Amino acid sequence: MIEYIEGGVCAPKGYKASGVHCGVRKSRTKRDLALICSEKSASAAAVYTTNLVKGAPLTVTKKHLADGKAQAIICNSGNANTCNANGEYIAETTSELLGAELGIPAADVIVASTGVIGQAMTMEPFERGIHELVRLLGADSAPAAEAIMTTDTHAKEIAVKFMAGGVECRMGGMAKGSGMIHPNMATMLGFITSDCAISPELLAKALSEDVKSSFNMVTVDGDTSTNDMVAVMANGLAGNAEICSEGNDYDAFCEALHAITVYLSRQIAGDGEGATKLLDCVVTGAKTLEDARTVARAVVGSALLKAAMFGADANWGRVLCAVGYSGADVDISKVGVSFKSEFGEVHVCEFGAGVEFSEEQAKNVLSAKEIYILVTLGDGAQSAEAWGCDLTYEYVKINGDYRT
Amino acid sequence: MIEYIEGGVCAPKGYKASGVHCGVRKSRTKRDLALICSEKSASAAAVYTTNLVKGAPLTVTKKHLADGKAQAIICNSGNANTCNANGEYIAETTSELLGAELGIPAADVIVASTGVIGQAMTMEPFERGIHELVRLLGADSAPAAEAIMTTDTHAKEIAVKFMAGGVECRMGGMAKGSGMIHPNMATMLGFITSDCAISPELLAKALSEDVKSSFNMVTVDGDTSTNDMVAVMANGLAGNAEICSEGNDYDAFCEALHAITVYLSRQIAGDGEGATKLLDCVVTGAKTLEDARTVARAVVGSALLKAAMFGADANWGRVLCAVGYSGADVDISKVGVSFKSEFGEVHVCEFGAGVEFSEEQAKNVLSAKEIYILVTLGDGAQSAEAWGCDLTYEYVKINGDYRT
Repeated sequence: MIEYIEGGVCAPKGYKASGVHCGVRKSRTKRDLALICSEKSASAAAVYTTNLVKGAPLTVTKKHLADGKAQAIICNSGNANTCNANGEYIAETTSELLGAELGIPAADVIVASTGVIGQAMTMEPFERGIHELVRLLGADSAPAAEAIMTTDTHAKEIAVKFMAGGVECRMGGMAKGSGMIHPNMATMLGFITSDCAISPELLAKALSEDVKSSFNMVTVDGDTSTNDMVAVMANGLAGNAEICSEGNDYDAFCEALHAITVYLSRQIAGDGEGATKLLDCVVTGAKTLEDARTVARAVVGSALLKAAMFGADANWGRVLCAVGYSGADVDISKVGVSFKSEFGEVHVCEFGAGVEFSEEQAKNVLSAKEIYILVTLGDGAQSAEAWGCDLTYEYVKINGDYRT
Repeated sequence: MIEYIEGGVCAPKGYKASGVHCGVRKSRTKRDLALICSEKSASAAAVYTTNLVKGAPLTVTKKHLADGKAQAIICNSGNANTCNANGEYIAETTSELLGAELGIPAADVIVASTGVIGQAMTMEPFERGIHELVRLLGADSAPAAEAIMTTDTHAKEIAVKFMAGGVECRMGGMAKGSGMIHPNMATMLGFITSDCAISPELLAKALSEDVKSSFNMVTVDGDTSTNDMVAVMANGLAGNAEICSEGNDYDAFCEALHAITVYLSRQIAGDGEGATKLLDCVVTGAKTLEDARTVARAVVGSALLKAAMFGADANWGRVLCAVGYSGADVDISKVGVSFKSEFGEVHVCEFGAGVEFSEEQAKNVLSAKEIYILVTLGDGAQSAEAWGCDLTYEYVKINGDYRT
């Protein structure tokens, strides 16, 4: 039984967070440096972008997580620290400064960056900001959740409680999304904390399985970021017997993790750059799970469908077109399509051909903020869900001049 | 030696064309039915979309071209004749009506459609329009080139002359593009005529080889259309000895074909829906031809880069990001990037990291209508070129409500 609670990444026992403006961003109007800290060393795991261009912080974090342990996460926004000559030096030195300030090994620091790629970066903002960042550590997760934002319009946080080994455990998460969002075997930035006791091996397994049906099913613009990362820490302070093998407790942990990651995935999609609508494509009746996922991602990724959803136009031919080019093994003559929202449901396509429907009703259904695109393949028992957003004038505006 | 000439598809000997408004489109302001006709049976070949959802005309055309012969091409705009219950009936009956009017077998007709997917269609506009269409056949290719347009802002036509077997031959082409453009082993609509004598087998080979480095290197929005098709007819009226084997004459034919297809590809990219700029990505130094093509297509396909080009923002990190997620085998530490246009060239990235450049100069270079993105991989001898366009407010506007 999962129950949603307040508190974000600070909801589990033994975690504090903070966020400051240290000067990576010139503008002082938004915080640009976040810290999440556990009072004791935690099992830790992460998944990373598959882009060949990788932010320097990912290389450093991978090295630090080799032992499956971490105690703090530091993340700046405003500069991706990617394609810089001194990128690893910056990420490593940041870890050392933070470690010294916290009294923990630099190798127990997870370091992340998000922002513009290929902009020069110096240690100066970190040297200036880290002392204050540590001084401000507290129970409020909001400053940290704000500090990792780029073009996000709001912070993305969630927490849940669940039972493992007869003990109440908690898990919290935050994420940033917005643009350059098309995770592939990894994700955008997401940080998750838990007080549940779980071995590093099972934690890594739970995370890498989970992202396949959560963060990896989100697309905003088809561009896989160079800095995607999701990191999770579990410090064991809930007091449950450590989860060291699969079974009921592991399942409960995975269920809680999935509640966090799906919530954050939907938040990221709905707050995609310029988005006015969350698109939720549910594919059923696929031959294989891979086919179901491929179709769902292709539909929410279609620029043409995204533009049609912005205009509340029930142009289902674009859904079928995306199903057709997705690469999945599909019998088009069996495909059905419906659009659904809080304002009702309209069935628009059956057996691969159009059915009569009321354009007025369709317009009404598609005027909602959250639209389900239901695709039935009629060819098997597998299903999948993917999240995206509409394509708007605002997306073009935001990205026509992002750097300056 | 290729020389550009006037006349489009009517430039080669023995071809006439026409275009009328027959009523597939309700608005009478634009022609919606095109005809291209050879005075004698011609060698003919076509390539088709790889989308599993295929327009009914493609199925019918494939059948008609089984013998490598055709004499006429008929194409309507305004309705894709795709995902309709009676689609093949319409395409086949159209061929029969046209065949009867021209006095040729229905099986010598190439039939094509472009427009909205999944809209009901009747024979009535064709029954009304075909007689007039044939009556108006003449030496002016412009009405036909206009009749195949959808959201294209201008017609796309070209013709060349070349020598084969000591004889002057001609070749002409027209195309429509605009949206749902991401050809994959096939293309958008393109129709090519020649008076050169060439066997159906070599014609098919020349076409299928050519599109790999022409139409298949174009992307507007990443959506592979259900109705992509390029068809070519060669009627032999130039009087050259029929090209029946590879050699100098075949090479001359291929060179002419490539001049036509690259010209049309660039026209399609530059007139992509809402586009204000043509993007031309030239990749050099790749290990394999496939790697070069993959990188070039990924760069011009990146929504983020397309938006940056709209804003004349030299955000080269987005070029590197696209190179990194393209899937090609690339050593990022060897990659260089420059932007180039009629206003100059600016070098922005070397060995995978930024170099200093003048933002003012970059802005100036990127203010041109035609922008070259030069990517050097420094890892081999293969190169490729791909064409795309910027992402603009107008793309969103056009596609937010295309059907109504």
